[in-house]
Amino acid sequence: MIIQYHNLYQFTNSVFLAMGCSAADAATATNALLAADARGIDSHGVARLSGYVRLWEAGRINTNPQISITHQTPSTAVIDGGKGLGLVVAPFAMQVAIEKAGKVGTGWVSVRNSNHFGIAGYHAMMALQHDMIGMAMTNASALVAPTFSIERMLGTNPIAVAIPAGVQPPFVADFATTTAANGKLEILQRKKQDAPEGWVQAKDGGPSTNANELKQGGALLPLGSDREHGSHKGYALGSIVDIFSAVLSGASYGPWAPPFPAYVPMPQNMPGEGLGHFFGAMRIDAFRPADEFKQHMDNWITRFRSAKTAEGHEKVLIPGDPEREMETQRMQHGIPLEPSVAEDLSATGKKFGIHLPL
Amino acid sequence: MIIQYHNLYQFTNSVFLAMGCSAADAATATNALLAADARGIDSHGVARLSGYVRLWEAGRINTNPQISITHQTPSTAVIDGGKGLGLVVAPFAMQVAIEKAGKVGTGWVSVRNSNHFGIAGYHAMMALQHDMIGMAMTNASALVAPTFSIERMLGTNPIAVAIPAGVQPPFVADFATTTAANGKLEILQRKKQDAPEGWVQAKDGGPSTNANELKQGGALLPLGSDREHGSHKGYALGSIVDIFSAVLSGASYGPWAPPFPAYVPMPQNMPGEGLGHFFGAMRIDAFRPADEFKQHMDNWITRFRSAKTAEGHEKVLIPGDPEREMETQRMQHGIPLEPSVAEDLSATGKKFGIHLPL
Repeated sequence: MIIQYHNLYQFTNSVFLAMGCSAADAATATNALLAADARGIDSHGVARLSGYVRLWEAGRINTNPQISITHQTPSTAVIDGGKGLGLVVAPFAMQVAIEKAGKVGTGWVSVRNSNHFGIAGYHAMMALQHDMIGMAMTNASALVAPTFSIERMLGTNPIAVAIPAGVQPPFVADFATTTAANGKLEILQRKKQDAPEGWVQAKDGGPSTNANELKQGGALLPLGSDREHGSHKGYALGSIVDIFSAVLSGASYGPWAPPFPAYVPMPQNMPGEGLGHFFGAMRIDAFRPADEFKQHMDNWITRFRSAKTAEGHEKVLIPGDPEREMETQRMQHGIPLEPSVAEDLSATGKKFGIHLPL
Repeated sequence: MIIQYHNLYQFTNSVFLAMGCSAADAATATNALLAADARGIDSHGVARLSGYVRLWEAGRINTNPQISITHQTPSTAVIDGGKGLGLVVAPFAMQVAIEKAGKVGTGWVSVRNSNHFGIAGYHAMMALQHDMIGMAMTNASALVAPTFSIERMLGTNPIAVAIPAGVQPPFVADFATTTAANGKLEILQRKKQDAPEGWVQAKDGGPSTNANELKQGGALLPLGSDREHGSHKGYALGSIVDIFSAVLSGASYGPWAPPFPAYVPMPQNMPGEGLGHFFGAMRIDAFRPADEFKQHMDNWITRFRSAKTAEGHEKVLIPGDPEREMETQRMQHGIPLEPSVAEDLSATGKKFGIHLPL
């Protein structure tokens, strides 16, 4: 099942409007959400639209949020997202970071009282057109067990860093701080396949290849998988994301991060408000002339792309290559929808009398 | 062989003085270098002193460097390290980041024309006493093959993040962006033991457990080990460190990073000057009141420390716990020296007529 980008855009935009978003917010949210589908990160795009609707129905998302800067210095700000869609709050916050970078070289914004913001890479990439390096991260519902633990304490807590180049496309890293993102497990579940060792652990902490392990009390593993292969580093990275996003801002952190599924009750004794994000923008010419930097980035990218490959591999990739190629293809030929996702979207549309134009 | 910290300090300080460092620089360098030995990161402490001396003998280190800020904005600076000891240049640069954070909330400093700076964690931790979050990273000689490659393109490029807490000790993450640091391989080499799978690859990119693989054309693997376990994430992290440290500052990046061993010839057509570092300082109260933040960090740390453990593990660690415990122990009972390191130190001392007081 293939849907053209503009049809999916119209549909999604209409759903956000029906939820009560302003025209500007609906467009912002649709652009952010569909960046995932365009770039091939199917788990974070329209497949989550019904989830956002259910959070709104449960009163956990406010589609007319009061988004406000509650504290700031020349290079920093804390933003209260007013329980808004993360898809709307995050671009607002990233814009604040970009404006501060314009004035004093860099801008750093920590956000509380927000919700899931789609893919981190979209927000980081907002900096590129300003000749800035962009960074974005977020905490998320706890699914990950720290090294030596069997308790879910951290989310998949992604980090994105976007760096402009000259004639080469930009460097765009965007990755969960776990060995594998939860979306990859969901794909295996649908295919009824096992997961590789090192992605999840069983409830008792033992090794597992069961792609459904999380439904049985298991946990995702931090990047590195086990202590011998550096899981303490993935655990540290996920923790840094949690602290920058939620402890700095006053959001709810660690095992208290609000769950994405609306049917899961909120944790008790939450130490902060909603989910947290963290954004950064660094003006290139706050360090060296942008043209000079971009020439060196072109040289960096060209050199790495031409690194000798191991047998069986055609080329060495630069972070962002696969997603950019996917985007080119999908914008031209349309976006494939899993039958279950198309069904879910149709049902969501029906709630508001909106037809999914397949 | 055990040596007391103050004896090792006297010895090391005397060597730096004999190399022509000013009294202030020798003290700065000694404090930075010995932080590694005190904290149990033996590969980065006095075991490298003879390496620094050889770089100085080869004219690659200037012990009377002109360290200068070549460009700056209110929140950023680029520093030319003047070919100085990284152990001296890095604290200077971190101090600039801290001063900028004091004025505008955050400070970010990229450094070129420097040398090996010891452990990243030492520099990041300089921020703690100012109620700031500290960050430090550096590029390094290329030993790491990107995902799908057999060519050494990146160093072990460590990242350190130090975050203050209240009554709890600070959170201090300090890790190479590889599955295992090179120092761990050196330990296995001395013990004539194999490495676990996933630490190194053979010259042709095949799997290997040979701890001596790097001497035979092999490479270290990025955190994640292989594509299926997220090595593209470790590769991205190492790349970000390289770009922030060297492309932003005008240092030599990627496979052109200057080698640490003085006998290895410098790469040809180097695109920049020397090694690069990157430092950051973020004032806590640029986001929320420091006391409030620290109370929440105490809560974060206490909650994670009490997470349920997997069988066979006593407790869940907070990043920085093992190094802090080691430091307490070694400051009291002395620092163990491998016989080969003690011999190397003695020989280094003899060059200058300095006796190693064992």
